[in-house]
Amino acid sequence: MSSASTSTNQFPAFKQQKQRVLKGSLQVPFDELTLSNGTKLLIYTTEGPKTSPLPRRALEWSEHYQDGDACKVRRTQLDYAKAGIITRQMEYVAQRESYVSSNPAFTPEDVCQNIAQGRAVIPCNINHPEVEPMVIGARFACKVNANIGASSVSSDYEQELSKLAMSLKFGADTVMDLSVGISDLMGLRSAILRASPVPIGTVPVYEALDRAEGKVENLTWEVFRQTVIDQARQGVDYFTIHAGLLQSLLPAAAARQMGIVSRGGSVMAARMVRCDEENLAFTHFDELLEICHDYDVALSLGDGLRPGCIADACDKAQYGELEAIGKLARRCYAASVQCFIEGPGHVPLHKVEENQRLEEQLCSYAPFYTLGPLVTDIAPGYDHITSAIGGAQIAAYGTAMLCYVTPSEHLALPDPEDVKTGLITYKLAAHAADLAKGLPGAELRDLEMAKARDEFRWYDQFALSLDPEHAYQVWAAKMPENCGHEPSFCSMCGPRFCPIRLNRKLREVYGKR
Amino acid sequence: MSSASTSTNQFPAFKQQKQRVLKGSLQVPFDELTLSNGTKLLIYTTEGPKTSPLPRRALEWSEHYQDGDACKVRRTQLDYAKAGIITRQMEYVAQRESYVSSNPAFTPEDVCQNIAQGRAVIPCNINHPEVEPMVIGARFACKVNANIGASSVSSDYEQELSKLAMSLKFGADTVMDLSVGISDLMGLRSAILRASPVPIGTVPVYEALDRAEGKVENLTWEVFRQTVIDQARQGVDYFTIHAGLLQSLLPAAAARQMGIVSRGGSVMAARMVRCDEENLAFTHFDELLEICHDYDVALSLGDGLRPGCIADACDKAQYGELEAIGKLARRCYAASVQCFIEGPGHVPLHKVEENQRLEEQLCSYAPFYTLGPLVTDIAPGYDHITSAIGGAQIAAYGTAMLCYVTPSEHLALPDPEDVKTGLITYKLAAHAADLAKGLPGAELRDLEMAKARDEFRWYDQFALSLDPEHAYQVWAAKMPENCGHEPSFCSMCGPRFCPIRLNRKLREVYGKR
Repeated sequence: MSSASTSTNQFPAFKQQKQRVLKGSLQVPFDELTLSNGTKLLIYTTEGPKTSPLPRRALEWSEHYQDGDACKVRRTQLDYAKAGIITRQMEYVAQRESYVSSNPAFTPEDVCQNIAQGRAVIPCNINHPEVEPMVIGARFACKVNANIGASSVSSDYEQELSKLAMSLKFGADTVMDLSVGISDLMGLRSAILRASPVPIGTVPVYEALDRAEGKVENLTWEVFRQTVIDQARQGVDYFTIHAGLLQSLLPAAAARQMGIVSRGGSVMAARMVRCDEENLAFTHFDELLEICHDYDVALSLGDGLRPGCIADACDKAQYGELEAIGKLARRCYAASVQCFIEGPGHVPLHKVEENQRLEEQLCSYAPFYTLGPLVTDIAPGYDHITSAIGGAQIAAYGTAMLCYVTPSEHLALPDPEDVKTGLITYKLAAHAADLAKGLPGAELRDLEMAKARDEFRWYDQFALSLDPEHAYQVWAAKMPENCGHEPSFCSMCGPRFCPIRLNRKLREVYGKR
Repeated sequence: MSSASTSTNQFPAFKQQKQRVLKGSLQVPFDELTLSNGTKLLIYTTEGPKTSPLPRRALEWSEHYQDGDACKVRRTQLDYAKAGIITRQMEYVAQRESYVSSNPAFTPEDVCQNIAQGRAVIPCNINHPEVEPMVIGARFACKVNANIGASSVSSDYEQELSKLAMSLKFGADTVMDLSVGISDLMGLRSAILRASPVPIGTVPVYEALDRAEGKVENLTWEVFRQTVIDQARQGVDYFTIHAGLLQSLLPAAAARQMGIVSRGGSVMAARMVRCDEENLAFTHFDELLEICHDYDVALSLGDGLRPGCIADACDKAQYGELEAIGKLARRCYAASVQCFIEGPGHVPLHKVEENQRLEEQLCSYAPFYTLGPLVTDIAPGYDHITSAIGGAQIAAYGTAMLCYVTPSEHLALPDPEDVKTGLITYKLAAHAADLAKGLPGAELRDLEMAKARDEFRWYDQFALSLDPEHAYQVWAAKMPENCGHEPSFCSMCGPRFCPIRLNRKLREVYGKR
């Protein structure tokens, strides 16, 4: 019989099968997997070079986007794309997305064209030169964002950096720092930026409210503006701004089952109610665009009225705000500020496609960036799963980036283990969407997994997994002591009933392709 | 700051909020939740009365389906339905599905009609009188099956019974005993049947091969027939029979990336290859139907050629077998043997709907019963999630029952903790599908959860959860020591940034519906 501890302490060989390699003139990073039969597979990686400090790569490319002023960018990626100029960032992401090296999936021209149409975004603040450029757009691989950040009740500086490291290890494409209510927001953010090879997003109103000492009546445009400028200078790559949550939508929001569940949205609304004024991010939107343009910060147009429960999904408040956001997206485009659109939230499965199609229609195909959606309200503790179900589905319909949800959603601030579980869940959901979209090359890893399973190459199976160590441990814990290194069975069926073994006889008679 | 152990040891009050109640003349069981505001909610339960021995309920109803012979049923539920006779089982499941007592969702006539059309099944072997009848059909709530069972390498008698108890606690609608290669298959099965208020399914060929001492050439029709009879007499409620895996399909199976991954299917195929004979379950299908009719055992027409990887999905082997199964389904119907259809497997998300529609078309709308499907191959250790994504989707399209997949799929035999995780994952997927289908009353639990969230009724939230204890523990572990019993915030945002609190101000101005 089995022993729970069997060989789990042996450090498995598959760890050495993965290596970071740099490809092409722009030194685009990939994980290269070497399987036991000699097959090599390139896999998109976001882990970065793991040096400290990180290389400041974008500085080498500065001649491509500077206009004579060494300190300040004058053109955004969108400016260049509109002019038909291919930047190194565009070249870089084209190579990065084309991981089937023998048959490039995307050319730099494809990337440039998608950006010029407002259908793709490369978030890359000029002051975050550590970024390895990445692209967010429906045409490309579906991306995953991980939220980290402290609250006044939980978490600390060190833990947030370990959440960042965990996020990178498990493939976060961008990371949002959602810290609120701690003493040194700027310092923590700076540490995160300097350690991050992926774009960092924030919700500036969190810090602005802190600067206003938590009083919405003190949250003036001047405070908000200065916060945005400070964060842009620090190098934040995209801002969530809830400028579409207009005063006219508040009655619909109040009438809901759960009202407003967005933190930033609720602050904006509280201010509008308290001061009886229109949303200041809306009234000062042009000024915000100017700041974002200066640093090439992308705008993530926030859905302050995202539904917080199934009962509120797809209502007047949500869709009314989406319509307002669509108008803002066109202003972003006109100002050459890259933007994408935040989406729900809680949505039943049969309304998922409607959400994607409406976003495309109202927001002129700007990339959609959704939180889940969660397809039921009744599973706290498992909302990484309720949301991955909706997330995979909406991404298959064209959503460009998914914001992960961790198992602690609705209950507590995530810890590093939650970050890991949330990310793996979302990486598999995003990958499922890439397969469904027919993204070139997406199926190669699945195919290698199938071959490894068929041939009992267990260690290759682990190496090909999204979480090799975990897969190995589950397998090893229940194998008999003396079954050899790569036995031709596992504990599910035992040796006699293993269908894979029985297959071999079938093929002796009928052959195999 | 938080302390990881805060109050997790206090036994929370919400446990007393749930009570088993019996409703109506047939004493249909429900969980009745009593929320702190007095609201009561009935929830479908499969846990059974937890007595030992279980009440033998179906015996009380015997006059409804016996034809003068006290020992042997002459008519199946399908016979009665065809004759327009409503059995107590039909009445029972109609009440069970209509958990919104104020507005019954289904009448006994609805149930009878669905069965008469072959679109629904009530698996209830006359020799399993402990069963609380349940219905499997697209019109009704989506059901979840849990697989348990020992293999020669792992698990034992006691552990299988604890997996059964875990399955019942977390809502398995049926349980399949998939034991193979252990010494006392009959004894274990008998213990499972006597302890199970839910229908039990098996794959008889597993035991038949054991009786043939593991040699497919000894697996004669006589051995197979006697195994089926013995299991039917014991009280097994449904049999998976791989009778659609025809000899003519073997070349297509051999040509696949992964060949045959079904245990039962691979045994049938190995026998066909070894003996150069047609599938014996196919050639003797009429005799099988006779046995099943005698005991009202339902047939789960097994997909021995279900795809084992994305690359094999929707191929000639899979769809060829589905066509053969459709013909067998019509023979079941003609013989008044209830049947449903097993489905994949590994299927990319964009092919999920095609699988459902093709099943309906080829199998005359017999209920579909799928394993997932898994929407990617690359996440071993997380395949409860990859499969719940496909499972929720296919159930929203009309699949009547989902076979759960546990986190240990592809790696090891599940332990009780895996059973729990698999079940909760599938219960949430099935519930998401019920919401998407617009099943009457399905949204009530979500609505109560939304209200409880909006009003900071934390303990009501836990009580409404699929896994109350777990939700409570996640929440409690990160709350500050002195925050009171039901604080108006949680550790995600802390008190200042809690949108739910900010909502209250919004409603002071605009009111709430």
